[in-house]
Amino acid sequence: MSKVEELKTYYRKAEMFESAVSLMYWDMRTYMPPDAAQYRAKAFSDISTYVFKLLISDELEKLLEESVPSNDIEEKIIKLGKKEYYRYKKIPPEMFEEMMQLSTLLEHRWETEKFTGNYQELYPLFQKLVDLNKKYAELLGYETEPYDALLDLYEPGVKAKEIEKVFSEIKIFIQDVLKKIESAEKFEDPFNRTFEIEKQKVFNHWLLQYLGYDFKKGRLDVSTHPFTNPVGLNDVRITTRYFEEDIKNSIYSTIHEFGHALYSLSIPEEFYGLPIGASASYGFDESQSRFWENIVGRSLSFWKSVYDKFTEIFPEMKTYTPEDLWRGANNVRRSYIRTEADEVTYNLHIILRFEIERDLINGKIFAKDIPEIWNERFENYFGLKVPSNTFGCMQDPHWFGGSFGYFPTYALGNFYSAQIYEKMKEEIEFESVVEEGRFDVIAKFLKESVHSKGRLYEPMELIHIVTGKPFSASPFIDYIGDKYSKIYNIQI
Amino acid sequence: MSKVEELKTYYRKAEMFESAVSLMYWDMRTYMPPDAAQYRAKAFSDISTYVFKLLISDELEKLLEESVPSNDIEEKIIKLGKKEYYRYKKIPPEMFEEMMQLSTLLEHRWETEKFTGNYQELYPLFQKLVDLNKKYAELLGYETEPYDALLDLYEPGVKAKEIEKVFSEIKIFIQDVLKKIESAEKFEDPFNRTFEIEKQKVFNHWLLQYLGYDFKKGRLDVSTHPFTNPVGLNDVRITTRYFEEDIKNSIYSTIHEFGHALYSLSIPEEFYGLPIGASASYGFDESQSRFWENIVGRSLSFWKSVYDKFTEIFPEMKTYTPEDLWRGANNVRRSYIRTEADEVTYNLHIILRFEIERDLINGKIFAKDIPEIWNERFENYFGLKVPSNTFGCMQDPHWFGGSFGYFPTYALGNFYSAQIYEKMKEEIEFESVVEEGRFDVIAKFLKESVHSKGRLYEPMELIHIVTGKPFSASPFIDYIGDKYSKIYNIQI
Repeated sequence: MSKVEELKTYYRKAEMFESAVSLMYWDMRTYMPPDAAQYRAKAFSDISTYVFKLLISDELEKLLEESVPSNDIEEKIIKLGKKEYYRYKKIPPEMFEEMMQLSTLLEHRWETEKFTGNYQELYPLFQKLVDLNKKYAELLGYETEPYDALLDLYEPGVKAKEIEKVFSEIKIFIQDVLKKIESAEKFEDPFNRTFEIEKQKVFNHWLLQYLGYDFKKGRLDVSTHPFTNPVGLNDVRITTRYFEEDIKNSIYSTIHEFGHALYSLSIPEEFYGLPIGASASYGFDESQSRFWENIVGRSLSFWKSVYDKFTEIFPEMKTYTPEDLWRGANNVRRSYIRTEADEVTYNLHIILRFEIERDLINGKIFAKDIPEIWNERFENYFGLKVPSNTFGCMQDPHWFGGSFGYFPTYALGNFYSAQIYEKMKEEIEFESVVEEGRFDVIAKFLKESVHSKGRLYEPMELIHIVTGKPFSASPFIDYIGDKYSKIYNIQI
Repeated sequence: MSKVEELKTYYRKAEMFESAVSLMYWDMRTYMPPDAAQYRAKAFSDISTYVFKLLISDELEKLLEESVPSNDIEEKIIKLGKKEYYRYKKIPPEMFEEMMQLSTLLEHRWETEKFTGNYQELYPLFQKLVDLNKKYAELLGYETEPYDALLDLYEPGVKAKEIEKVFSEIKIFIQDVLKKIESAEKFEDPFNRTFEIEKQKVFNHWLLQYLGYDFKKGRLDVSTHPFTNPVGLNDVRITTRYFEEDIKNSIYSTIHEFGHALYSLSIPEEFYGLPIGASASYGFDESQSRFWENIVGRSLSFWKSVYDKFTEIFPEMKTYTPEDLWRGANNVRRSYIRTEADEVTYNLHIILRFEIERDLINGKIFAKDIPEIWNERFENYFGLKVPSNTFGCMQDPHWFGGSFGYFPTYALGNFYSAQIYEKMKEEIEFESVVEEGRFDVIAKFLKESVHSKGRLYEPMELIHIVTGKPFSASPFIDYIGDKYSKIYNIQI
């Protein structure tokens, strides 16, 4: 066996353990009996640490250094493998463990404190976690600012300076659009009523089939927070959640996770387990979920397409037209909670978080200052007074779970998706394809242009390859402008 | 940390990986999407082999040899640990892997050939597996006959000669009872009808609650073959199966698995992950499942106890008395399939298998001879002509999965359970306890006398400790005699 084949075997072996860890996670969030939580947390962390050690072993270094690529793909594997190996290697395993334990503890405490909004309880520990991440950034290294080192973990090759530039443009645009929408005529939201959960389940399962989710390679289950979990080869499971008074939540969570799952299931099998066998970045992964959720699922064509089935399951909705449902699904309003935000205001939530976490990691502000900064800036951006930290800086798990540099990938996902959409429309009659339920046409486009590339390219390279143009937020601006002009009968 | 503490930590660490393997198994049999099977099989075998290597490592040997026990419990841990270590150590890892692969392959092929009954297809490979097990027995070592080496894996300390003695007594008894029952008056089986599966589920879930299964530490799911799976600490899950035309199957599978789960959940937490943190033997584990299934679940008191709920869910059954249902649950008949056999004939099925597998491992017969020997002996014991191997030597997975020496533990389980029952009745008003649904009283007795002992004792020691008497099949003979005299109004 050649060294490069040995290298692949090594990665695939490590992936088996990763796969076990994934299953443990999925089970924790779906079917695990409650009293098992404590032991499972320990087992989960132990096996994760074992995997981490596999990825910084001397054996792996030797294989990476001695492998001679016989083609471009192998060259990418080795290059990416080395990047990861030497990055992880900079981190003392004790530090990895300390970060894992501290973030697990803090996220666990956040889960309860979130509802009291008592930030005072958390911030001393939180500052410790921030300091640990600052040290982490120093160890990883950066050119301009510490924050870039962490950002690179989620969005390889992207710098905070570039994001800042795009965000400042978007910030103005959103506030402008918001004002125009607010001066337009209001409409009734037909989803403002209760929907029997059993019927919601029927609709969601039907919808996944209709979109083309392969239930031989996945499942739809229920969890508190919806997620997609690639458990193993040919095994990518999704979850959703159901509320009687909020059917949009289940429908759009399901479509969102479907987008993630489709990406994961369409990466070439021969990439599986290797450094190239994943999505290009967190932002790219999000571009796929947001593409299906918003560009497909919140389109007028979509509501025309599912109208018969939807009103068959919920006959009381026959009093509304597909246009009514489409408008209802795109109701814009200033709100506190990111995950419930519409497409227009969503990125403003992200911008706020990006600005704060960047200053935090770069040492310009400290953990104790966050609530004040958050509330002041939120009022400035959204024109709303934050009633409590529950609706403010304590709403998301990310920071308390030790993720800094993650938030901007959500906005990048939105921008990538609009850029891909612009390109797609050159080749596909998008509206009629959606209306006729020929989602395989869209899946095929995405597979060929994005999914089949795995992690061969960094996100900014990939978006260029896919669209023939450099990264830009303009397609997103055009998309929002066009869509909401129609929805609200205004000029954007 | 003392060496013995290090030893415990080592075992507990290995158990984390075992726990992952268990979860993978549970998932394979319950919720895994079908296309994931191939990859999962590979991951399962890889991580299992990793665990095997942890159990034969030099590090473990050193810890075992250097540990100094500070109490009786630690002495047991080290003793049992050494026994297992040096046993595994005798097996070359390549041989372990070969056996695993061959048995996985053969069991997989059996799954389809079982229905054709085409033994010719399997036996060359099967003979290879037998030969491998014979070699295995030689490596493990024995005093009298090779079969003992394998039997010891399942029922430590028990010898084939002893089993033979008990079985020859039981064989005569069963045939005698059978004749008496067959000359008695027949009765109608009220379960001979269809029962809606959704309602069966309601009854089974209610029943588990009623028996005292802790759903915070377990689950009830559906699988083709019911099983109990200790996934981790405070996490012991069971499954059952539902057939419209066979409600007894689901009820008694559920109760059976409940018995296994209760055992596993009642072993002291401080034993968890250590060599002593398991049931005393396969036979003892079976004694608990059979105790609940037969001695509790097939008693008249049980049917009186659940009668109201059962007839509330199935109102059409109100035309029967609890006595009718009790008789129906204990219908004796000569039949081909072990897993569907009643309490009287069940052990005869086991005796047949024991005799054949013993001769096979001891080299007195060969794989190719099995169908002929089976059919001849079956007719002799049961007075029935075997119509095909599907109903004969190919009905069970055990042999094709490489388990030899496992079958007798089923019969031993029945005998242990009757012996425990005899003792229990000295301390507990069994019939009224069951009738009043005070199952916690029974669980407490079993916990104190059996479960809390974990694997501190070998089964024959343990039964002596529990009952104050040496092992004997007489209590089983008394139990059957007493019970079926009443059911059939005969003199046994």
